[in-house]
Amino acid sequence: MITREIHFRVSYSDTDQMGFMHHSNYFKYYETARWELFRSIGIPYPEIEEEGIILPVVNASAKFIKPALYDQDIKIITMIKSFMVARITFYYKAINESGEVINEAQISVACVKKGTGKACLPPKKIKDVINTLLKE
Amino acid sequence: MITREIHFRVSYSDTDQMGFMHHSNYFKYYETARWELFRSIGIPYPEIEEEGIILPVVNASAKFIKPALYDQDIKIITMIKSFMVARITFYYKAINESGEVINEAQISVACVKKGTGKACLPPKKIKDVINTLLKE
Amino acid sequence: MITREIHFRVSYSDTDQMGFMHHSNYFKYYETARWELFRSIGIPYPEIEEEGIILPVVNASAKFIKPALYDQDIKIITMIKSFMVARITFYYKAINESGEVINEAQISVACVKKGTGKACLPPKKIKDVINTLLKE
Amino acid sequence: MITREIHFRVSYSDTDQMGFMHHSNYFKYYETARWELFRSIGIPYPEIEEEGIILPVVNASAKFIKPALYDQDIKIITMIKSFMVARITFYYKAINESGEVINEAQISVACVKKGTGKACLPPKKIKDVINTLLKE
Repeated sequence: MITREIHFRVSYSDTDQMGFMHHSNYFKYYETARWELFRSIGIPYPEIEEEGIILPVVNASAKFIKPALYDQDIKIITMIKSFMVARITFYYKAINESGEVINEAQISVACVKKGTGKACLPPKKIKDVINTLLKE
Repeated sequence: MITREIHFRVSYSDTDQMGFMHHSNYFKYYETARWELFRSIGIPYPEIEEEGIILPVVNASAKFIKPALYDQDIKIITMIKSFMVARITFYYKAINESGEVINEAQISVACVKKGTGKACLPPKKIKDVINTLLKE
Repeated sequence: MITREIHFRVSYSDTDQMGFMHHSNYFKYYETARWELFRSIGIPYPEIEEEGIILPVVNASAKFIKPALYDQDIKIITMIKSFMVARITFYYKAINESGEVINEAQISVACVKKGTGKACLPPKKIKDVINTLLKE
Repeated sequence: MITREIHFRVSYSDTDQMGFMHHSNYFKYYETARWELFRSIGIPYPEIEEEGIILPVVNASAKFIKPALYDQDIKIITMIKSFMVARITFYYKAINESGEVINEAQISVACVKKGTGKACLPPKKIKDVINTLLKE
């Protein structure tokens, strides 16, 4: 199982007038979290784009259990859940300072050729690294 | 069936370096869309908050079919799908200028007492309006 | 004098926990406002980028006089203040529903060749249109 | 002179289709930078709000010298430049990985009573801490 953690602090601009981090921001931090996972397994996302491939989100679902509040330190645990043909699915948990799971999400990205917008197979390096790690 | 439409134009700050509207922005526009629906049925969201009630998102899922591009005029069709106890579920379609469905989503909000963060029953007015309209 | 108006409604995601529109959002709406001005004088911004030219912000200053609040309808008045060599300067006023000026700003963009990042002269069409209008 | 540094990495959602960090995002990171400076001198911003005081931005100006690019590690140097009656002025420099100053800004915040929106004197603690440090 490929699992990595990042931390972020809820910024003032993340909040809305409910006093909660606006729900749309989870998707921004989950994005950062998956590319930090990729960096840690030797596939920095900027290098993927340099090869003419982008990995846009094709599916996302999230359960908002408790709010994230201004200035809280939030931990995101990211897991690669599956890797099928041109699609990689990530599973996320966001955990607050009290250890409570405040958000769970599942997000899939697809391999797409820049410019054409057509689905494509991921570069061999990505395939090999992820498949090896998924077997561990 | 309660259905309403809004339009928005993809702004430059909505885009990312893929040249697509960043996926997190759909959730911002869907939020605007549901409160415009609420305004149109006589329940402006600001009045709900004035009564000490907030309607945070508790569940969201979206399918990103095609990208929204800078300067495109995007139509959002919003539907109230269900209303159960303290939870209202909205269904969305985003449609581009060529008439293509580029995004579909389902988002649930819950009735919560401001301050306490406890789930609560929605004010009678909301219940009556939505239930009447759902029967139509 | 080239002057145009747009309106926007402060969205929930624009607010922060002060209950104000977050100050960074003015710059997003001012961007939309200047390209709407450009559209209205026959130079849609997407066409500029198609010619390999971008107009990034090089200078911005703003005075935040009163807050913009959730759901308020805000009017932005945009003026082209000057056009010198490769730099266009815009002047803005944001006005709330009570007619109060809540924000004033001055923002300059520069003509830059996409890819190289080097300053360049604006396409003849832009020069001619703006110079003609500035003389009126 | 009170000077502090923070670092941030340009996230994918920070970028726009020019491939630059959108200019509005500097103001979000400068906000985080000033409250990190405040935390480091013993005045965490959340405690100020708990006392019924907010510090909204009243003036901001920035010079955008070079773009910040996706995944770059950007250093922000924050300085308290002046403290007069109810207004604190910060001066910022953003520096990229090559040591180039890419952005300079000056941002003033004002002491305001939450709820009333009226300017007020800052709490004694803030006054004492900042005045002592400004003399050093």
